[in-house]
Amino acid sequence: MALIDETHDAALRSWVESANGHGDFPIQNLPLGVFSRPGETARGGVAIGDHILDLAALAASGLLEGEALDAARAGSGETLNPLLALGSGPRRALRRRVSALLVEGAAERAQVEPLLVPMAEATLHLPARIADYTDFYVGIHHATNIGKLFRPDNPLLPNYKHVPIGYHGRASTVRPSGAPVIRPNGQTKAPDADAPSFGPIGRLDYELELGVWMAQGNQLGQPIPIDKALDHIAGVTLLNDWSARDVQAWEYQPLGPFLAKNFLTTVSPWIVTMEALAPFRMAQAPRPAGDPRPLPYLWDETDQRQGALSLDLEVSLSTARMRGEGVPAQRLSHGPAGNMYWTIAQMVAHHASNGCEMNPGDLLGTGTISGSEDGSQGSLMEITRSGREKVTLPTGETRTFLEDGDELTLSGRFVAEGAVSIGFGPCAGVVQAAVSLK
Amino acid sequence: MALIDETHDAALRSWVESANGHGDFPIQNLPLGVFSRPGETARGGVAIGDHILDLAALAASGLLEGEALDAARAGSGETLNPLLALGSGPRRALRRRVSALLVEGAAERAQVEPLLVPMAEATLHLPARIADYTDFYVGIHHATNIGKLFRPDNPLLPNYKHVPIGYHGRASTVRPSGAPVIRPNGQTKAPDADAPSFGPIGRLDYELELGVWMAQGNQLGQPIPIDKALDHIAGVTLLNDWSARDVQAWEYQPLGPFLAKNFLTTVSPWIVTMEALAPFRMAQAPRPAGDPRPLPYLWDETDQRQGALSLDLEVSLSTARMRGEGVPAQRLSHGPAGNMYWTIAQMVAHHASNGCEMNPGDLLGTGTISGSEDGSQGSLMEITRSGREKVTLPTGETRTFLEDGDELTLSGRFVAEGAVSIGFGPCAGVVQAAVSLK
Repeated sequence: MALIDETHDAALRSWVESANGHGDFPIQNLPLGVFSRPGETARGGVAIGDHILDLAALAASGLLEGEALDAARAGSGETLNPLLALGSGPRRALRRRVSALLVEGAAERAQVEPLLVPMAEATLHLPARIADYTDFYVGIHHATNIGKLFRPDNPLLPNYKHVPIGYHGRASTVRPSGAPVIRPNGQTKAPDADAPSFGPIGRLDYELELGVWMAQGNQLGQPIPIDKALDHIAGVTLLNDWSARDVQAWEYQPLGPFLAKNFLTTVSPWIVTMEALAPFRMAQAPRPAGDPRPLPYLWDETDQRQGALSLDLEVSLSTARMRGEGVPAQRLSHGPAGNMYWTIAQMVAHHASNGCEMNPGDLLGTGTISGSEDGSQGSLMEITRSGREKVTLPTGETRTFLEDGDELTLSGRFVAEGAVSIGFGPCAGVVQAAVSLK
Repeated sequence: MALIDETHDAALRSWVESANGHGDFPIQNLPLGVFSRPGETARGGVAIGDHILDLAALAASGLLEGEALDAARAGSGETLNPLLALGSGPRRALRRRVSALLVEGAAERAQVEPLLVPMAEATLHLPARIADYTDFYVGIHHATNIGKLFRPDNPLLPNYKHVPIGYHGRASTVRPSGAPVIRPNGQTKAPDADAPSFGPIGRLDYELELGVWMAQGNQLGQPIPIDKALDHIAGVTLLNDWSARDVQAWEYQPLGPFLAKNFLTTVSPWIVTMEALAPFRMAQAPRPAGDPRPLPYLWDETDQRQGALSLDLEVSLSTARMRGEGVPAQRLSHGPAGNMYWTIAQMVAHHASNGCEMNPGDLLGTGTISGSEDGSQGSLMEITRSGREKVTLPTGETRTFLEDGDELTLSGRFVAEGAVSIGFGPCAGVVQAAVSLK
């Protein structure tokens, strides 16, 4: 699965000129998504530079055969669930064939060129119908930072280093990048208030996460062993777990976050496949001395050697005024994704360890990825220390939490020596005012 | 919506003889489900006595017109989601027409009789594809009982009487009655153990709940006002939230239950519609003096007058040995469903108050419904006081939690003066041994 093949060659260039040097979608990436043009039904596509290769048209072109054709056909509908269900073999066959068709000098260029759609003409949709959405909590620095705010004396609970903590989220409110972030109304209670009240929430926050798209699943009752876990993963995406911190503080005991999180989750719309990630896999950071060794169902030597990702993540904020004045977005944080205490394989193996049925199109969030230092924290809750410290922007505006009109953007870039960098495309949203109460 | 019409008349009898005096499915009930016969595709049906009226055949029969026909057509596929999406008007039109076709003396009997399928020949499926599953916690006695076990000094948290507490569950593992209950493996840590371990869980429990099936939903960002909430509900079912108490105790902080709950949820397969429930709606029990009045978004006078259900619930247990010796199942608990601190309308209005998108086929659990007294508690955790007291069965066997081979059955019956009682059919499962670890 981690095999590096000819599709990763750093010398590869595409005859799609915009792909060469493209920050996100050079020919070494070839991520999968779903798009539509005005008046047409949605269908699968592959991003290449500033274009999309139409999978439905490709499947009908006669340019494919075998597993690659199976994959393109499965990717021709309004969701990629059928393609995800096929697993890594057909997905990889499609990747290799698409790479060969798009490479500089390809003999088939004249036949492929009409199958390209300019991204500027396309609307991007969720890549799959999300069967179930689960959010984990594997960013240990985030867990520690947040834990300090809620439980100063006990930031990291005793189970954290034994259990990949997770909880179920809301599948119906996951949206692709660009969906408006309508400020929710909610029930909150200030610590010094006698009683709770209901209205537009005040502490609107983001969380910088990775999203993991499941490929083929398991049968109810049958676990997924950790050494097979990555066979069940199609790829990754950026994920913003928008959060209402004031609701969260009041509602989360004893059953966890609910309305504080389920009003919206934004993902970048392209699935960067496990195949594309092969050059960017690296060893999981060794656990600090004294940390417990995970139980056998969560431990795999191969996973430890290549279960982490060489990925730089960044969050930026642009207020309405900044955009009006042409001031560039301000970076709020920047850091590596190597801070995850548990790997993706460990998340999957744990999730299915009790026989829980997983399905193609399930989405798993990693939880917020924060570094240990200032400047690398993945939420405003951490950056402003629960609103006690302000962020100052180039216009002189300040923020503790998000205000109406703010645009928040996550971005990420895979970087490794000898490899061409790839990315996700944007994962962004603009905050809108709450709907008025009757 | 609460209107009582001719379909509720206690004097009504059906020409389907088994319906008359049937504990669950007299002609006054007419619940909706999905069934299949060997070798045939699944399709919607209406339960009547020990038969099922085939909705696909009925839609094609020429016996329906208008909204009733729309509803039957929408109920002809493998899931009832399209029928649920139509809302109460077509659902009620279908009910009235089906009642008229099945009533004693109906002129159409000869045409309808061939559309009946013996329940004994049918496999029952989930009535709808579950979009999202949410579990609430509205049984205040359960919350208090469980709270005492986890937090003796602080059983009911400060938010309980202000917020209808809920959390997201796992949609992929909801199954209809009869699905095997495979004992999960899980990570647990005994209070006196140095480290956690992984293996078959020891404290397998059930939870007696009602399930609520959503009809038409709302748009992302738009709340559902409480006075409209019941328009979004199709009906109710029994729900067993199987629970691994030892996993729950170790994993649930800080994000709530996860693997302790998501290995299986069992529902009774028939949706008892809001129309069928009309005679069994009653006033919500007044809140104890001193309890806070709910915030306006959770308060509706009409809902207070008729938001509770006149419903008797019962749980029974039968061990493998009891079944082998022909000993009848032992009742574990019995009590009314009127113990819910929050109504179904309050659950829905709260859930959508932040704009969370709800969809047809969403399933909401109420949380465990327990009475305040011994004999009315909806889980073994409460009955055995966390395993400290044993239940003795007629064979001399004892139980603190469920053992392999145990069959656990939930049942319920709506009872009201002047009305014919109706029920759900069984909600049962037999515990099987855990899958072996490699």
